[in-house]
Amino acid sequence: MDKLKQRIREEGKIRGVNEILKVDSFLNHQIDPAFLTEIGGAFREKFDGVPVDKILTIETSGIGIAVAAAPAFGNVPVLFAKKNKTKNIAGDVFISQVESFTQDRRPYNIFVSKEFLHPGEKVLLMDDFLANGSALAALIDIAQQAGAQVMGAAIVVEKTFQPGGKLIREKGIRVESLARIAEMSEEKGVIFAE
Amino acid sequence: MDKLKQRIREEGKIRGVNEILKVDSFLNHQIDPAFLTEIGGAFREKFDGVPVDKILTIETSGIGIAVAAAPAFGNVPVLFAKKNKTKNIAGDVFISQVESFTQDRRPYNIFVSKEFLHPGEKVLLMDDFLANGSALAALIDIAQQAGAQVMGAAIVVEKTFQPGGKLIREKGIRVESLARIAEMSEEKGVIFAE
Repeated sequence: MDKLKQRIREEGKIRGVNEILKVDSFLNHQIDPAFLTEIGGAFREKFDGVPVDKILTIETSGIGIAVAAAPAFGNVPVLFAKKNKTKNIAGDVFISQVESFTQDRRPYNIFVSKEFLHPGEKVLLMDDFLANGSALAALIDIAQQAGAQVMGAAIVVEKTFQPGGKLIREKGIRVESLARIAEMSEEKGVIFAE
Repeated sequence: MDKLKQRIREEGKIRGVNEILKVDSFLNHQIDPAFLTEIGGAFREKFDGVPVDKILTIETSGIGIAVAAAPAFGNVPVLFAKKNKTKNIAGDVFISQVESFTQDRRPYNIFVSKEFLHPGEKVLLMDDFLANGSALAALIDIAQQAGAQVMGAAIVVEKTFQPGGKLIREKGIRVESLARIAEMSEEKGVIFAE
């Protein structure tokens, strides 16, 4: 998606070499709703003709993307996996562990209520970034626990220099990314794959 | 908003007396995107003619609502306050503390990058629930730190038996809620105000 690449080039903030890319001006902190709707349309094009009963994502950044994309998928329900088990959620949940690559590196659990994910449901996974693939692997695990059918993963930005994309595709999951970053540094900027 | 009250009556799960209301089937875990769009339209009606430059909300549940509501407000940017300071955010932020009424009751900080909130900006606050008002008070604090103008707070569900609504209105902030719950219990169900 050329417009996405352009916005990453113009607005993305890079720190380190292949380390941090912030796209906080339109995706992860401030959100550009009209642009997210376009991203949703681009996802629908990538998964043209693929039946989708439900979009499954993960808090926090996935939610806005999934809600904005839903109209392009016939306004199917959006389900987001939660990160902390608060008193507001019942006990009957699918749980999976996510390895963390942030500062403290403590793994955390995500969960989805069994009430909202069912055998045979055709689920499209959606997230902002695909890097190490640990969050996406946990979403796949949860979908499989439920007996749901994973139709694919729709990703806004894939970092191809990290192993997530390969890992998830090796599980037989179709991954479609709108921008694939091969390399990034403060010096060179963002270099896209292909 | 009658349809909202109806869905709360039919799908809401109550625990205790005036304690927990879960609307996980369409708002807080699973999201009904078309219904959230209707909620956005209802917010626009409530704030008819009020100029809005930006919607300010807070992760997690506010994000889906704000993104779905944005088209009714001319697709203004959505900015969500973050709860954890990870390495993905720069140092230059507005911070405010939120009192917590969940199990562990530890207060937490929310923050917004100074880059995305400016003096004079007309900001509409948005959130799913208004109960004790601590999250909303922190959003107001952040908007005021930025010198932004708070045009009001658009709330999906207000619990009028808790002090938040009164507290926020006493600050001179206009609060509009689509459903106001006066009382709730497993025995009586949900009783709406007015």
